Amino acid sequence: MLINCAAYQDGKKLADVPIEAISDYLVKPGCFVWVALKDPDEAEMAAMKAEFDLHRLAIEDVMKGGQRPKIEEYGDTLFTVLTTVEAGENGELVTGQVNIFAGPNFVLSVRHRSEQGFQDVRARCEREPELLKIGAGFVLYALIDSVVDRYTPVVDALSAEVEELEDRIFEKQGLAASRALIADLYSVKRRLVILLHHVTPLVEAVSKLVGGRVPALCTGMQAYYRDVYDHLVRVSNTVGARRDMIVTAIQVNLGMISLAESEVTKRLGSFAALFAVPTMIAGIYGMNFQIIPELHFRYGYPACLAVMATIDAILYLRFRKAGWL
Amino acid sequence: MLINCAAYQDGKKLADVPIEAISDYLVKPGCFVWVALKDPDEAEMAAMKAEFDLHRLAIEDVMKGGQRPKIEEYGDTLFTVLTTVEAGENGELVTGQVNIFAGPNFVLSVRHRSEQGFQDVRARCEREPELLKIGAGFVLYALIDSVVDRYTPVVDALSAEVEELEDRIFEKQGLAASRALIADLYSVKRRLVILLHHVTPLVEAVSKLVGGRVPALCTGMQAYYRDVYDHLVRVSNTVGARRDMIVTAIQVNLGMISLAESEVTKRLGSFAALFAVPTMIAGIYGMNFQIIPELHFRYGYPACLAVMATIDAILYLRFRKAGWL
Amino acid sequence: MLINCAAYQDGKKLADVPIEAISDYLVKPGCFVWVALKDPDEAEMAAMKAEFDLHRLAIEDVMKGGQRPKIEEYGDTLFTVLTTVEAGENGELVTGQVNIFAGPNFVLSVRHRSEQGFQDVRARCEREPELLKIGAGFVLYALIDSVVDRYTPVVDALSAEVEELEDRIFEKQGLAASRALIADLYSVKRRLVILLHHVTPLVEAVSKLVGGRVPALCTGMQAYYRDVYDHLVRVSNTVGARRDMIVTAIQVNLGMISLAESEVTKRLGSFAALFAVPTMIAGIYGMNFQIIPELHFRYGYPACLAVMATIDAILYLRFRKAGWL
Amino acid sequence: MLINCAAYQDGKKLADVPIEAISDYLVKPGCFVWVALKDPDEAEMAAMKAEFDLHRLAIEDVMKGGQRPKIEEYGDTLFTVLTTVEAGENGELVTGQVNIFAGPNFVLSVRHRSEQGFQDVRARCEREPELLKIGAGFVLYALIDSVVDRYTPVVDALSAEVEELEDRIFEKQGLAASRALIADLYSVKRRLVILLHHVTPLVEAVSKLVGGRVPALCTGMQAYYRDVYDHLVRVSNTVGARRDMIVTAIQVNLGMISLAESEVTKRLGSFAALFAVPTMIAGIYGMNFQIIPELHFRYGYPACLAVMATIDAILYLRFRKAGWL
Amino acid sequence: MLINCAAYQDGKKLADVPIEAISDYLVKPGCFVWVALKDPDEAEMAAMKAEFDLHRLAIEDVMKGGQRPKIEEYGDTLFTVLTTVEAGENGELVTGQVNIFAGPNFVLSVRHRSEQGFQDVRARCEREPELLKIGAGFVLYALIDSVVDRYTPVVDALSAEVEELEDRIFEKQGLAASRALIADLYSVKRRLVILLHHVTPLVEAVSKLVGGRVPALCTGMQAYYRDVYDHLVRVSNTVGARRDMIVTAIQVNLGMISLAESEVTKRLGSFAALFAVPTMIAGIYGMNFQIIPELHFRYGYPACLAVMATIDAILYLRFRKAGWL
Repeated sequence: MLINCAAYQDGKKLADVPIEAISDYLVKPGCFVWVALKDPDEAEMAAMKAEFDLHRLAIEDVMKGGQRPKIEEYGDTLFTVLTTVEAGENGELVTGQVNIFAGPNFVLSVRHRSEQGFQDVRARCEREPELLKIGAGFVLYALIDSVVDRYTPVVDALSAEVEELEDRIFEKQGLAASRALIADLYSVKRRLVILLHHVTPLVEAVSKLVGGRVPALCTGMQAYYRDVYDHLVRVSNTVGARRDMIVTAIQVNLGMISLAESEVTKRLGSFAALFAVPTMIAGIYGMNFQIIPELHFRYGYPACLAVMATIDAILYLRFRKAGWL
Repeated sequence: MLINCAAYQDGKKLADVPIEAISDYLVKPGCFVWVALKDPDEAEMAAMKAEFDLHRLAIEDVMKGGQRPKIEEYGDTLFTVLTTVEAGENGELVTGQVNIFAGPNFVLSVRHRSEQGFQDVRARCEREPELLKIGAGFVLYALIDSVVDRYTPVVDALSAEVEELEDRIFEKQGLAASRALIADLYSVKRRLVILLHHVTPLVEAVSKLVGGRVPALCTGMQAYYRDVYDHLVRVSNTVGARRDMIVTAIQVNLGMISLAESEVTKRLGSFAALFAVPTMIAGIYGMNFQIIPELHFRYGYPACLAVMATIDAILYLRFRKAGWL
Repeated sequence: MLINCAAYQDGKKLADVPIEAISDYLVKPGCFVWVALKDPDEAEMAAMKAEFDLHRLAIEDVMKGGQRPKIEEYGDTLFTVLTTVEAGENGELVTGQVNIFAGPNFVLSVRHRSEQGFQDVRARCEREPELLKIGAGFVLYALIDSVVDRYTPVVDALSAEVEELEDRIFEKQGLAASRALIADLYSVKRRLVILLHHVTPLVEAVSKLVGGRVPALCTGMQAYYRDVYDHLVRVSNTVGARRDMIVTAIQVNLGMISLAESEVTKRLGSFAALFAVPTMIAGIYGMNFQIIPELHFRYGYPACLAVMATIDAILYLRFRKAGWL
Repeated sequence: MLINCAAYQDGKKLADVPIEAISDYLVKPGCFVWVALKDPDEAEMAAMKAEFDLHRLAIEDVMKGGQRPKIEEYGDTLFTVLTTVEAGENGELVTGQVNIFAGPNFVLSVRHRSEQGFQDVRARCEREPELLKIGAGFVLYALIDSVVDRYTPVVDALSAEVEELEDRIFEKQGLAASRALIADLYSVKRRLVILLHHVTPLVEAVSKLVGGRVPALCTGMQAYYRDVYDHLVRVSNTVGARRDMIVTAIQVNLGMISLAESEVTKRLGSFAALFAVPTMIAGIYGMNFQIIPELHFRYGYPACLAVMATIDAILYLRFRKAGWL
Repeated sequence: MLINCAAYQDGKKLADVPIEAISDYLVKPGCFVWVALKDPDEAEMAAMKAEFDLHRLAIEDVMKGGQRPKIEEYGDTLFTVLTTVEAGENGELVTGQVNIFAGPNFVLSVRHRSEQGFQDVRARCEREPELLKIGAGFVLYALIDSVVDRYTPVVDALSAEVEELEDRIFEKQGLAASRALIADLYSVKRRLVILLHHVTPLVEAVSKLVGGRVPALCTGMQAYYRDVYDHLVRVSNTVGARRDMIVTAIQVNLGMISLAESEVTKRLGSFAALFAVPTMIAGIYGMNFQIIPELHFRYGYPACLAVMATIDAILYLRFRKAGWL
């Protein structure tokens, strides 16, 4: 589905362009065309392939989806695959794919399963003609930057979740809460791994636009791409550090469970001991020996009860003091 | 066993060629021969060695089997060892070996213990003459691509299995199910390690066909080999991420077992307490003191039973509330 | 907020300079201006941007904060982001950000959320004119060195805390203390990870000022930057080694908890056994068989009590010897 | 102790050579001398040093032993240290050391504590004159290849042991068997680490004979050294994968122990409950209340026993169903 | 404190030199001065700085101490920081620092907190004039070699300790011994980490004297520095392998504790069951039903006791067979 197609010259929008007219603008000097597609069908992609002379392997990647983030050179065209990561309704991460072809006089973005579009990027670019004048290299930067910017709220949400879990580990809690805590720790770990799975290859890919031999399209844009790169490394390091802590958190959680278990064992054992003492004494005075003098004492029974109660009281206090009850 | 042997020129099949006639075609300019063998015997390999001037160490590797995936240059011939990985009947991974010799004017593929052949690769190549025209370099790509493509269902099946196990970890379950879960977690980990064991060296080997000094046979095929490389890295990263989660899953599973144990301890302990109370009271009224006034009350017995029941009811409710029963 | 602004020539201070007059000094040969800002507003930064021709991306980094430590070249200006790490009141780490722009004839430092300023650095520099004569390259070194020096007390405090925790692991302790110990181990691990999170990128950044192609500003300062680099590597390795030990400490702590649990189980079990024996004997002599000869013995009852006491005494000694009580 | 000393020319053995006559053969063009020593004394090594002009540090390494595998150049002589690893009687790994000096016209092998000699290597070389013709470079390859080949049975035995242990983890077993299993897991891990300790440096050392600048002695032998290298990497990766699994196996084993413990707790607890019920009921009817109507029922006693048996039967079935007994 | 100061020429000692006369010898061609200091004060170091033209940052490093091992070039002077590691009285590691300045015509060694001096190194050097003739480059090698040699007994002692701990893990033992074992495992791990902390940076530093661009001072000494490097790598790998095993040992130890706990649970539970059976039977015959025929049997009581004993005997044998008692 075509979302948008416009031609730009000297940082200003010339006109909205119908697909058939793209080639007219491509030949104009200092002019470039910016096309945005969403979930295109085979025919649309075929038209784009013809228009911009795209490589069939890149087209295949776009149509098949499920690619890892990468930036590849096909002649003087850069083919970029980005993964959008958004927090879904139940906290699960929802990933989409954005493919960008950027040549000397065109930018083509194709997005799949990603709700958020890039209208805001286009609008911002149009408000900054002195930058948009740079051409396709700047638009490519703006699109990558926009995708990377959207990682931040996801990382922040996960960080907040990690911190909340860290607090819960050290709270006293019942079995159900413990169970939920373990499941939550696991879930966060899983989402951090997924996020890293998408960010790591992008870090590597963008690094190639920053140092060493840089594609012609990006020359003179070093500071901008380095900025995106920095942002990505920051995201990647933050996620890495969180993942490191989650692993420890799970281990520490095991320790807390063991401690809680230990506490239950102590309480139940102490409880049992409190019953065992009177039962034993009662057993003794339930024996049928002919001669058990205490049985004939006038206050034998209350005295016996008093002894039981006293012993239990002493035990109770000692268990209490030892922290067993 | 000879599966297939044909000569190609300008992207079109010239003829099926008997082994003895191979050398006639090798000398024709712009012509190449594509031979497919399966589990060949020594004599067949000796014939191939003579025909294509193969190195004795490569022949040894083919006959001995058990090699790690690799791509080696012997003069202008590339010797490629690939591992096929398929899911066997009981889910176990079945690995086979595919060896490919590719020279300027020939491709020889030899497969061992691999059920699936490469007839479909040949058929697809023959349908695309403009690509087949490139020659041995393209056929080599098509064969590697085909082997790598077959990893995808294996990885997908393992991923599905990991996700199913992740769900089972957090289900309440009996001892036998727990036992089975641990065994399944271990089994998946083992298969992921095996898969990685076969994929990792191939990633490294194919990377040499993509950047830096590339063998003559593969020049001009960069985009294609980069595509295979990308696919391999994706497989490798996915398997790596799954393995990372499995390790955490095993650890988390330990936590769930500890929790379950804790629950059992609590239930049994509470259960015991429910019996201990009436037993103690009964013991007291089983004592033989001469004077125990309660024993002579008219409703002493039912009152005593009522007290027992009441205490137990209270305990039961408190244990319930505390989540112990 | 402007903290300080002065011009220097030949290692000596020329004058305090109002912001408007900066450009007058910038054109003087062999003269450089050193400006210090704290939590500047947009207008102040805009003035600085105009005065020193700073890049808008660097300005953005300064205003947004939350950057990772880095050293970037914008033309012949070096833009440095440093993180100050200080121990807060309750032991938590408080991080601030220091940004330094250093060009051939100026140094501009901007700090955020950092209590400690750099007046002492300025004072020290002014006391060493032969070094200050080198110019902006030396001032940059002095500022970085000062930030890095302040990591040492933080690392030392954490190291001391680790050692104190190591001792506590092997002490016998109650449940509450164990709980606190686990929480403390976790807290230290977290702070070590945070510290490493800030130090690691700085190690990498400073390494670029030491070997290979070095920015013009830092040439001839190799020994000094190598010194800072060394210091950073030392901090990083110490923190790494401590983190390694903390992970083991947590694991060992789990072992100690298991041991303590084992001890409780043994004690409670032994305790129960001591009650079970007399209860069983009492039960036997509480049976109502018509003929139980012992019941009619004259000293049956005391003998019975003596047997109970003897068996319990023997059991008690054996449990004691086995280390169960 | 001199094992063997012979001169070769054009791939054929010229003569067995007494040590004193070595220098006569060294000067003959196209001729090389191959000497094999076992546990030599200082005098023998001194003679060799003089004969072949060996470096004193290499001689020291030979005499001291305990070196890590390495390949070092001293001028145009290659000094190679290899570790032989054999399975000893009780499964423990027995390591020996083989030192090889290889110069343009000689090969000197010195072995320590290694039972197996290299007579078979010499015999095989003498049977292949076309290869032996290459000279010392080929003999060096043949010796390294022979040592590396002997790792295979050790790795295979360890792999088999790992697989057997993997099966045992999931068997139900008694305490003694569990204890033995843990000890066996540990022992295998230890042997894998030892093996890796010897193989890893050799991988690195041999890699230097394969790519980049190769010592003169090995030029034209690339395919052969690459073959050894491949073999080593395969051994190293296999051992690494096994070690990875052993770590998981130990963790999983902990889970199985916890499960077994949980099972015991449940069985003992259920068992106790089965006794607690009749004991409680018996206690109730052992009370001495004047009016307990049931006591006077004609079939009170059998009815009571029947109730006890019924409750226990119900409990037994429920525990059984819950998997507790 | 000045320990020693002598001038050497052509491998022979010229004279002991007072500090004031050093400069006289420095100008003599082919002559070098070797000074040894211990815990020098500021004045002594200032004299050395003047005499040998040392860099102020290196002097600071010497005076402050606590540096990580490193080798730095200041012009044609090499500044080397080494850590001595010795086993203290109670097994704790005691570290000292040795700083060596080596220029074309001098060597200055400064040691701190290190008991062992380098008199033996000097003596050995003076006995080998043909090596000492090489000059400062050889003395530097001899000093580094001497420090590295002293790591060997420390590593050997730790290795022996690890092996002894490995044996103790699998012994049956009481709580106190288990507690001590865990503490010992932790202590060894800590010392291995400390050792690695000192050895790792030295490996890296010495590697720079072996390959690539080598400082002028060390040219022609490649074989010697490679020998030290080899030794260091060996130490580093051994310590690394031991650390790997210690981590597993701690994990395995947890398993053994769990097993021991399991054993105690079984024994106590079985013990309890042995008492529960007679108690239940006694309870039954303690009931007050009017009609309990067994009570009137002549041998009812002994028969009852016999039944109790029989059941317990059977249970005892079964528990024994099941390995529970």
